[in-house]
Amino acid sequence: MSDEGLSRRRLLGASGTAAVAGVVAGAVGGYAVSRGDDDAAAGAPSSTAAAALALDAAIPFRGEHQAGIITPAQDRLHFVALDVVTTDREQLRQLLEDWTRAAERMTAGAEAAPGGLVGGGPNRAPEDTGEAYGLPASGLTITIGYGPSLFDDRFGLASRRPAALQDLPAFTGDQLDPRRTGGDLCIQACANDPQVAVHAVRNLVRLGFGVVAVRWSQLGFGRTSSTSTAQATPRNLFGFKDGTANVKAEEAAGLAEHVWVAPDDESGGGAWMAGGSYLVARRIRMHIEIWDRTSLQEQEDVIGRDKKEGAPLGRSKEFDPLDFARKGPDGRPAIPVDAHVRLAHESNLGGIRILRRGYNFTDGSDGVGHLDAGLFFLAYMRHPGRQFVPMQRALAKADGLNEYIEHNGSAVFACPPGLKDGEHWGQALFA
Amino acid sequence: MSDEGLSRRRLLGASGTAAVAGVVAGAVGGYAVSRGDDDAAAGAPSSTAAAALALDAAIPFRGEHQAGIITPAQDRLHFVALDVVTTDREQLRQLLEDWTRAAERMTAGAEAAPGGLVGGGPNRAPEDTGEAYGLPASGLTITIGYGPSLFDDRFGLASRRPAALQDLPAFTGDQLDPRRTGGDLCIQACANDPQVAVHAVRNLVRLGFGVVAVRWSQLGFGRTSSTSTAQATPRNLFGFKDGTANVKAEEAAGLAEHVWVAPDDESGGGAWMAGGSYLVARRIRMHIEIWDRTSLQEQEDVIGRDKKEGAPLGRSKEFDPLDFARKGPDGRPAIPVDAHVRLAHESNLGGIRILRRGYNFTDGSDGVGHLDAGLFFLAYMRHPGRQFVPMQRALAKADGLNEYIEHNGSAVFACPPGLKDGEHWGQALFA
Repeated sequence: MSDEGLSRRRLLGASGTAAVAGVVAGAVGGYAVSRGDDDAAAGAPSSTAAAALALDAAIPFRGEHQAGIITPAQDRLHFVALDVVTTDREQLRQLLEDWTRAAERMTAGAEAAPGGLVGGGPNRAPEDTGEAYGLPASGLTITIGYGPSLFDDRFGLASRRPAALQDLPAFTGDQLDPRRTGGDLCIQACANDPQVAVHAVRNLVRLGFGVVAVRWSQLGFGRTSSTSTAQATPRNLFGFKDGTANVKAEEAAGLAEHVWVAPDDESGGGAWMAGGSYLVARRIRMHIEIWDRTSLQEQEDVIGRDKKEGAPLGRSKEFDPLDFARKGPDGRPAIPVDAHVRLAHESNLGGIRILRRGYNFTDGSDGVGHLDAGLFFLAYMRHPGRQFVPMQRALAKADGLNEYIEHNGSAVFACPPGLKDGEHWGQALFA
Repeated sequence: MSDEGLSRRRLLGASGTAAVAGVVAGAVGGYAVSRGDDDAAAGAPSSTAAAALALDAAIPFRGEHQAGIITPAQDRLHFVALDVVTTDREQLRQLLEDWTRAAERMTAGAEAAPGGLVGGGPNRAPEDTGEAYGLPASGLTITIGYGPSLFDDRFGLASRRPAALQDLPAFTGDQLDPRRTGGDLCIQACANDPQVAVHAVRNLVRLGFGVVAVRWSQLGFGRTSSTSTAQATPRNLFGFKDGTANVKAEEAAGLAEHVWVAPDDESGGGAWMAGGSYLVARRIRMHIEIWDRTSLQEQEDVIGRDKKEGAPLGRSKEFDPLDFARKGPDGRPAIPVDAHVRLAHESNLGGIRILRRGYNFTDGSDGVGHLDAGLFFLAYMRHPGRQFVPMQRALAKADGLNEYIEHNGSAVFACPPGLKDGEHWGQALFA
C-alpha cells in the first residue's frame, strides 16, 4: 500500500490501539472531564495523537442501549428513512437479522478484510461496495428505529405498538414536505468520516433491496450538540453554540429520567422498548440570508445567549445558569421573554429535557439562489408526547427564532434497546 | 472555554505550530515521499500528531498560482457557481477586491478573532456569520474562476477573453441539467472540515449580495483524487481507487506541460491568464444501485483495474505501468478494449493528461428512492479544448463505464494565476 502523508486516515489507522481502547472505554464509562476550564495542556502531542486516534476508533455495537444515542456525537451523519415495500413479515424479520450482522461488521471497521470486499468470488456482485475499504471504523454507529406506520396491519405488529409511538401532531408554522416526512424504519449512521457513514447506509439499503426502499435521506456535515461533557459545544449555522443544556452521557439520573424507556413505561405489547428511546427528527431549514442581515443584538436577543462565548445574556460563561429574573441596563429582562433559551428551558417546561443529537446540513441552493441549509434536529427522549410535543408547542407559539426558521421535514421512531451477544434487531419485536 | 475531548478541533488548534509549518512547507516545496512502500512506521505517535495537525493548518493564500489547485487535496468541498446580477462593472470589480480580502482572512483562520465575529458593533449585522468561530483554518483554500459568459458585453471584458475559454461542446450521452450548468464565476472552497468550507462560501456569497447570486452549488464529502505523491489514492463511490495516474504537485514538468497556462499560450487580451489554469467541472451521477448488482469481474473489466489494490489488470501493484498489450488467460486483452483506464490513458490520447481534483457527493435520494450520488469531477488543465474535450470525446464514445454514469452538470472556468502581496482578484483582468 502507498502511504498517505497529510491524510490521517491510514496514518492513524496503523497506529497503536492502547490509546483508542482507553478513550473508548472512557466514553462508555463516564469520562469525567471538568468543564469550564481552559485546559490548553490537552493540546500536547500525546493527547493530540490520542484524540485523533479516537476519531478512527471502533465503537462497540452491542450493549444495554443502542450505540449512537449517548455515544459522544460524531462529526458526520447519514440518516435515512425507509418504507417497507414487501408485505411478507418473514422477509422483514430476516432483513433486520441481516442488517444486524452487517452493522456489527461495519461498525467494527471489518469491511477492511479482503473477503468483505470481494464476497463469494469474481462472478458474484461484491458483498461490500468497497468505497470504505482501507478506512478505519471512524467511530461509526448505526442506530435503528421503527416508525408508527410499521405497526399498521401489514406485518401483524399492531399489538406490539408502544403507546408512546404516535405520529406527531401538527404544530403552528409547520411547512412539512411529505417527501421529507415519515417512514416505516430509520437508520442513523454517524461517523467521523462521511465516506464511512454514507457507505454504511448504502450497504444496508442494498441488503434491503426488494424489502425496503428509501423514502428520504439527510446528510449532516457537522454536529450541533454535544452529548458528553468531554465535548465542546459546537455551533449551528446561525453561528451560535447549540445544545449547551443538553442531557449528557455522564448524567445517569438525567438519562434515566429523560432518555431511556423504563421497564414499566410501556405496558403490554410495547414492553420490548424498555431500555430503548424515542427519536424525533425534524428538518429545520434556516433562512440564512435573512439571519445574516440581522444585527448582532437582535441575533443574541432571539437566541438568549451571547454569540461569542455562548453565555446566557446577563452572565459571562457558557455554563452559567440562566437567570430569567435578571434585568438588563434598560430595565427589561436580560433574556427577552421570547428568547429561544427561555422558552426551551426546563424551568419553563415543567422540567422537560431531551437529548439532542442534531447536525448542520446544506443541500445546495434553492431555485432563487438561497442556501438550502439548516439544522437536522435529532433528539432522543423517553416519551415524545410528554417531552418534544409540549416543548415544540411552546416554541412554535412564541419563539422569536420562528421568523428565521421553517420546519419542513418530520418523523418519529421507536429505537429499541441495545443487543446482547447473539441477539439481533427485530428479535424482541417479532417474538 | 470548555475542552473538547474526542474532537480534534480544539485540541489540535491549541497545539504547537512547528509541525504544521514543516508539513505545509513540505507540501509546497515537494514533500518527497516514496510510494509503493508500506510505511507503517509513519503511524508512530509523533507522525500521527503532525499529520493530524496538518489537517488544521493554514495554507498560504498568495503565491505564483492560486491555492486549491496543486495543494494536496483536502477532504471536503463546497463549490458554487454564481451569476453576476448587476451590470455595473465597478461593482463587480469592487466585489472581487472585497472577496480577496475576505478570502485571505478566512484561509488564515482569522475569523477566529473576536473582531471578525462581531463586526462594527451590536447594532450592525456581524461581519462574519460565526459558525466557524473557534475552528482552525483546516487547510482552507479558496479558488476563483471566471466563466465564458463573464466575457460577454456586459462588463466590457469581451476583448480580455482568453481564446481557450470556450463553452464545452455537447458530448454523446450528456444529460445536462441547466440548473447545474454554467456560471459567470465560480468559487471552489476546499477544507478538511466541511463547516469551514461551507462557512467560506456563505460569507463570500453574503459579501456579494446585490452583485452576484448563486446559480448552483455542490458539496463534496470525500476527495476522489490525490494531487500529491504524499497522498494515498482515495476511492470513489464505485469502490475503486480513482486518480492513480493524476498529474501530481511534485511533477514540475508535468504541471508546466499540462496544468499551468504558459506566458505565450494566450496572446493579446488573454495574457492575464499566464500562470493560471482552466477548470472543467462535471457533475457525474453514478447509478449506484445498478453498479452494486454487477459482478466483481464486470466491475474490474469496466474500470481496467482490480478493486482491492487498484493495480492495472494483469499487474499486481497500483502504480505498475499499464500494459495494454498483455493478454489474459483467455487470450483476450487483460485490460479490455473499452476499459476506462485504457481510453483515458495518455498513451491513447496523444499524451494528454489533466490534474483531477474531484469529490464524491451524495445529495440525498431521487424520487424513486435511489441515491443521488456520484463524482463531482473537477479537473485543472492548460487548455480544455486540447485536453478535456478530446479525452471526453473518446470516453463518451466507447467507455464501458457510460452504462453506469450520467453527466448532468457541466461548466468551465478560467482560474487566474496567484496573487502577489498587495494584489487582488480581478486586478489584471480589469486593468
